[in-house]
Amino acid sequence: MQITENNRTQQRQPLPEPTLRRLPWYLSYVSMLRARGVEYVSSTSISRELDVDASQIAKDLSFLSIKGKTRIGYEVAQLEHIIRDFLGFKLPHTAVIAGVGSLGSALLADSGLHHYGLDIVAGLDINPDLIGTEVAGVPVYDLADVGEVVERTKAEIGILTVPVESAQATADLLVESGIKALWNFTPIRISADSGIVVSNTSIYAHLAVMYNRLSMNTL
Amino acid sequence: MQITENNRTQQRQPLPEPTLRRLPWYLSYVSMLRARGVEYVSSTSISRELDVDASQIAKDLSFLSIKGKTRIGYEVAQLEHIIRDFLGFKLPHTAVIAGVGSLGSALLADSGLHHYGLDIVAGLDINPDLIGTEVAGVPVYDLADVGEVVERTKAEIGILTVPVESAQATADLLVESGIKALWNFTPIRISADSGIVVSNTSIYAHLAVMYNRLSMNTL
Repeated sequence: MQITENNRTQQRQPLPEPTLRRLPWYLSYVSMLRARGVEYVSSTSISRELDVDASQIAKDLSFLSIKGKTRIGYEVAQLEHIIRDFLGFKLPHTAVIAGVGSLGSALLADSGLHHYGLDIVAGLDINPDLIGTEVAGVPVYDLADVGEVVERTKAEIGILTVPVESAQATADLLVESGIKALWNFTPIRISADSGIVVSNTSIYAHLAVMYNRLSMNTL
Repeated sequence: MQITENNRTQQRQPLPEPTLRRLPWYLSYVSMLRARGVEYVSSTSISRELDVDASQIAKDLSFLSIKGKTRIGYEVAQLEHIIRDFLGFKLPHTAVIAGVGSLGSALLADSGLHHYGLDIVAGLDINPDLIGTEVAGVPVYDLADVGEVVERTKAEIGILTVPVESAQATADLLVESGIKALWNFTPIRISADSGIVVSNTSIYAHLAVMYNRLSMNTL
């Protein structure tokens, strides 16, 4: 109980983004260790496995008030519990997805998202062939009805997988409907009021970096 | 012809990663402008649209030897051509995907990747129910046959969408088979020889950042 309360408080503290990005790595690693029956892990072992400096790991975990014991290290089950709780992966976060095309359908079909606390409850599209159908068990509604859908589902997160040309307009529509966070998968950057969380996840930008590094290596 | 030669040379020059990540944004924007019939664009317009400093845009584009004309700006069609060519989106890059589960199948179904030059020619899995089938038109082979598959297809890129527990072992297997770049979608960090390009794209890490920002905003 103490732990949960503590985390709740901690979650309100601004955490450096690099730390936030590393925490899921630690979580994956310790989940794996727990599944193998390992009880304790040192920051040195985590460091070796994930190629992150041991002192950085200790610093990252100190944000969550986690301290290892000398010579024993961290308790695996507790570490997993605290990180998962802290990252909000245990709480359900309701989302709608705008654009049920190729990538949108793909994300609807990815059960991994659900495992990380994301509950996609509705698809939105303008294609009459899709409206009224279900994709991976999720109903698809007319984008024009977004206001009603967001109100009824109390969705906080809007996932953007529309074509580039409609990205900004759809983002605006989602925000007007009450969406608090935009997860933008389109390759274009979108803007929103400062009170709205915007996360840009262009997988195509990663491709550009990878192609460039490949061409450097094959000189 | 001059342009292409020039780009070829430029592509061999190490580019800062932030520049590489911004170039796809510029590309998306100018593609949209070209589709609308716009002929010229100023760095000020790009800046306003994408919320990137105009001087930063000029600097990024100078890496590609692109210079705007005073008072006219950049020629949209040329800008699109040069960036797309530079980023390697026009060249086919052959890839195999290891792990044809939920996320793996999703990526196979995403035609967007093909549009950005990625040609996924084979799936690899250990599940006997999947081996010998096709997913989104791509044949799935036994992971044990990875060496033969990579040799035959001449695949350069290995996409990792296996469970966390097998991520590193599968990465090692792909590299031994001749893969030159690993696109890691698993939430765990993987390591490889310095000659191998590793791109970590954990969409779940983005979720952690988004949840945290959301909880800060709803104080």
